[in-house]
Amino acid sequence: MKASQFFISTQKEAPADAEVVSHKLMMRAGMIKRLGAGIYNYMPMGLRVIRKVEAIIREEMNRAGAVELLMPVVQPAELWQETGRWDKMGPELLRVKDRHERDFIIQPTSEEVITDIARQELRSYRQLPKNFYHIQTKFRDERRPRFGVMRGREFTMKDAYSFDRDVESAGKSYENMYAAYGRIFDRLGLRYRAVAADTGAIGGDRSHEFQVIAETGEDAIVYCPDSDYAANIELAEAVALLPSRGAATRALEKTATPGRSTCAAVAELLGLPLTQTVKSLVLATDEKNEAGDIVKTTVWLLLLRGDHDLNEVKAGKLPGLKAGFRFATEAEIADHFGCKPGYLGPVGVKKPVKVIADRTVAQMADFVSGANEADFHLTGVNWGRDLPEPDAVADIRNVVEGDPSPDGKGVLAIQRGIEVGHVFYLGTKYSAAMNANYLDENGKPRPMEMGCYGIGVTRIVGAAIEQNHDERGIIWPTSIAPFAVVLCPIGYDRSAEVQAAAQQLHDELSALGVDVLLDDRGERPGAMFADWELIGVPHRVVISDRGLKDGKLEYQGRRDAQATSVTVADVVTLLREKLGA
Amino acid sequence: MKASQFFISTQKEAPADAEVVSHKLMMRAGMIKRLGAGIYNYMPMGLRVIRKVEAIIREEMNRAGAVELLMPVVQPAELWQETGRWDKMGPELLRVKDRHERDFIIQPTSEEVITDIARQELRSYRQLPKNFYHIQTKFRDERRPRFGVMRGREFTMKDAYSFDRDVESAGKSYENMYAAYGRIFDRLGLRYRAVAADTGAIGGDRSHEFQVIAETGEDAIVYCPDSDYAANIELAEAVALLPSRGAATRALEKTATPGRSTCAAVAELLGLPLTQTVKSLVLATDEKNEAGDIVKTTVWLLLLRGDHDLNEVKAGKLPGLKAGFRFATEAEIADHFGCKPGYLGPVGVKKPVKVIADRTVAQMADFVSGANEADFHLTGVNWGRDLPEPDAVADIRNVVEGDPSPDGKGVLAIQRGIEVGHVFYLGTKYSAAMNANYLDENGKPRPMEMGCYGIGVTRIVGAAIEQNHDERGIIWPTSIAPFAVVLCPIGYDRSAEVQAAAQQLHDELSALGVDVLLDDRGERPGAMFADWELIGVPHRVVISDRGLKDGKLEYQGRRDAQATSVTVADVVTLLREKLGA
Repeated sequence: MKASQFFISTQKEAPADAEVVSHKLMMRAGMIKRLGAGIYNYMPMGLRVIRKVEAIIREEMNRAGAVELLMPVVQPAELWQETGRWDKMGPELLRVKDRHERDFIIQPTSEEVITDIARQELRSYRQLPKNFYHIQTKFRDERRPRFGVMRGREFTMKDAYSFDRDVESAGKSYENMYAAYGRIFDRLGLRYRAVAADTGAIGGDRSHEFQVIAETGEDAIVYCPDSDYAANIELAEAVALLPSRGAATRALEKTATPGRSTCAAVAELLGLPLTQTVKSLVLATDEKNEAGDIVKTTVWLLLLRGDHDLNEVKAGKLPGLKAGFRFATEAEIADHFGCKPGYLGPVGVKKPVKVIADRTVAQMADFVSGANEADFHLTGVNWGRDLPEPDAVADIRNVVEGDPSPDGKGVLAIQRGIEVGHVFYLGTKYSAAMNANYLDENGKPRPMEMGCYGIGVTRIVGAAIEQNHDERGIIWPTSIAPFAVVLCPIGYDRSAEVQAAAQQLHDELSALGVDVLLDDRGERPGAMFADWELIGVPHRVVISDRGLKDGKLEYQGRRDAQATSVTVADVVTLLREKLGA
Repeated sequence: MKASQFFISTQKEAPADAEVVSHKLMMRAGMIKRLGAGIYNYMPMGLRVIRKVEAIIREEMNRAGAVELLMPVVQPAELWQETGRWDKMGPELLRVKDRHERDFIIQPTSEEVITDIARQELRSYRQLPKNFYHIQTKFRDERRPRFGVMRGREFTMKDAYSFDRDVESAGKSYENMYAAYGRIFDRLGLRYRAVAADTGAIGGDRSHEFQVIAETGEDAIVYCPDSDYAANIELAEAVALLPSRGAATRALEKTATPGRSTCAAVAELLGLPLTQTVKSLVLATDEKNEAGDIVKTTVWLLLLRGDHDLNEVKAGKLPGLKAGFRFATEAEIADHFGCKPGYLGPVGVKKPVKVIADRTVAQMADFVSGANEADFHLTGVNWGRDLPEPDAVADIRNVVEGDPSPDGKGVLAIQRGIEVGHVFYLGTKYSAAMNANYLDENGKPRPMEMGCYGIGVTRIVGAAIEQNHDERGIIWPTSIAPFAVVLCPIGYDRSAEVQAAAQQLHDELSALGVDVLLDDRGERPGAMFADWELIGVPHRVVISDRGLKDGKLEYQGRRDAQATSVTVADVVTLLREKLGA
């Protein structure tokens, strides 16, 4: 293709509202154009990347035996009412009434519609397993859309749904998709990690996020460099950092700690390591009657080592907290502890307050905690001697770098990541709600076991840039670059030799199936090179009169510090090597 | 591909609400599945056809120099308010409010958004001409969606928009698209006609519809078999059927015609040809003041030959009627004619009624019309002698078969058609409303000349079926068939020889790039053949033990009356010939 047949629109400056580098570079490279908050036009340059991402996803989904269909953007509310999501989903679900005042939604995902299809089409065990997918426009009415295509409102997603006869078969479908996702992200040329993720109310251990590694990522992902353990921070298991509880060696003492309401301040004052302190967090759970009035409130004291943070997802899985918890009010804290926050501790706490100690806290001896008296802490606190054993010991903290890996094979590291894919075992959540049954060998109706598998197509484009850029612009992996090769002729509009050489190389590469663009705009070299470095085309060939005199061209990879001279005769071979073709 | 890796779901019966053959066959062949009124899931079999249609359109649009982008489904209301379409479009425009109560629409088309892009991106004459297109989901909230994908609410459309510096250049862009459309519909394998169409308020002669010929089409398309004249019925020019007005030969007489309120009944009673009668239609136009109150009503008498029909589009272009007209009420008719409808005529009609005669009527002599007295008609009516010349003579009728072609090169024929494409010169309608200006050589801002070019992707699928089917099912043109070739092995699940031969042929054809499906379901021949005839795959090869014994297979084209025996050695060559590969 020639630039004159395409549309190139680069900008020197990014708009002020572009917060992250991918958003800035996509705007500057003319890949997207804002239409409204979180709504973008995909300009020709951006659409080429999206289509390449889609093509790779499609090929690998087909290879994995999934079958493509297309479900509508506008979906009737009835199906969403059947599963209860019409009520459960908040304003994120864009709702619309048609001319007859009937309710519809603009789909954010398609579990309801695919389950509706499956309950009509998949009637017999002979038809299972089956996996349907589509690549379709989605809409989520985010409260605060931002980061360009990373958290937009309208976006493109591939969502697949598997239907199986039993849990075992569903597990195989899950593994099949997990493997396909690996092939997809490999082919996309991205550094990524598949991490175990929380399954929420569904339970079980079959949920993995595919995270593109990037310093700017919103998610913390935990992995063990010496094993294949990997999980997101919500799920990653934190083991006790002490093998067993030490013996008490110090007496319990009350110490004045005026104004020292944090563990760090207390440790500093007392000249003790932060790891010797215990922080106290107070939660509350409310029981309600059928009318929705609170009939009983329970207060919970959660204990964490001073340098650790609460993991609310883990806390939310504990008996008693599962139905939902909140942080206690200051009044509730004063009522149960006789003290303001900052000086709370487990010593002397009476029923009905329930005490939950993190695994590490449960092994600590001679520790420091608040004295339940303003401006005082206790030192030399020991379980059993100074206070009863906690009501429960549990993993309620976030892991930190250097924690032992829960598989016992090393220590954990943490990276930032951008979630671009998710495989999830759904069980019968939707099939049971919507009566999606098949008949087994005995003619008995059984709900289908389902899985869902999403990939954020447009988000991948942003994530790829977050991972691959420099101060000059984007650096595309070749497989999803808008063009694999750009030909930059110098003086295209005044040299017949340059024109002819550029045209010939363009035609030769095109004939080989190389996605090449010839920049025939006649721009000056500086502006032309800056454009293509901003746009991020991975391979560039410069054609100039000066070079041609010696039968030479200049090749430069987007990550190369400088250009390499190459003969006209060898350039195609060189490019094919570089492209791995 | 093998059937077991795909999804085939055929039905014996079509649902009761399927009115047209394409809707019935698409439902029965498992190509679409209804989700709501006018909203369909495109099932795997249907999606394959849609993707092939899209690919052909995309290739030819690119070849014509158009550049693909993608504009959002959800679009902010502001742009639609800028052009006034927010108010002008009725409930067909699906409107939605986001969580912040801001107005959006679900796009039925994208003139506003592309003009918004153009006014920001196309600043200089050097950037023109430019043509952008996208293939995107559209929504039109039809009052009565029906005919499956032919008049659905959610549908896929390709819409392109050209931007030019002046009318002459815009004309070239228009011709370029017109030519591209010809290549697209040729490649789709459809019989079609490009017909001149009405340009409405835009004016000019640059509007063509691309109509797929089908007896079941909603549109009447007019053409001259002896020339290239073609227009839709709204536009097709009707010439006077009499070269000049004949002399009066009969006296004016009033005749009793009790109960004969139609021209046909009167002609029969009087023993005269219908072509001797004139029918009278009464229209009214209202002038309103700024408050919207009617301040003046004008009544119009339109005269047509008894066998002709009024063309409301033509009438709507006449001076005085342009701003909109309605049919007069019975009260208004009684008031101005002193008579009920059925017996009206032009003789004795007084100002302020305006009389408009069709071109043919203006040449008639000795004609019959109502006497403006119930149960009476006049015969031997003659212009000039019995009544003054009409206020205007105009083409206000639909052409009929056998009318002289307006280019004087023969007579007109009429076919039914389904509109699947439209090319339209927009002029500056949108660019002026939205200030989409470019700077010319002198730095002077000028509005861009625009054209818009639509193709109904999903509608093409329906139209192709309306044109190509028989009592057994669909007959796809090869270029858009879900599969070009189906291999039907007999006894696949019990004969190793059949399996091996089928597999080998499948692999060989696949390697040649032939879109082949191997039906490995193990269905019995009757059911299997019926499925593929219903689905409409154009080429079928049957592989059986009996045939293989003699080294033979059976080939049958979907339109062939019977199968042809072909050797295993020759089948690939035969298929390549049939496929034109």
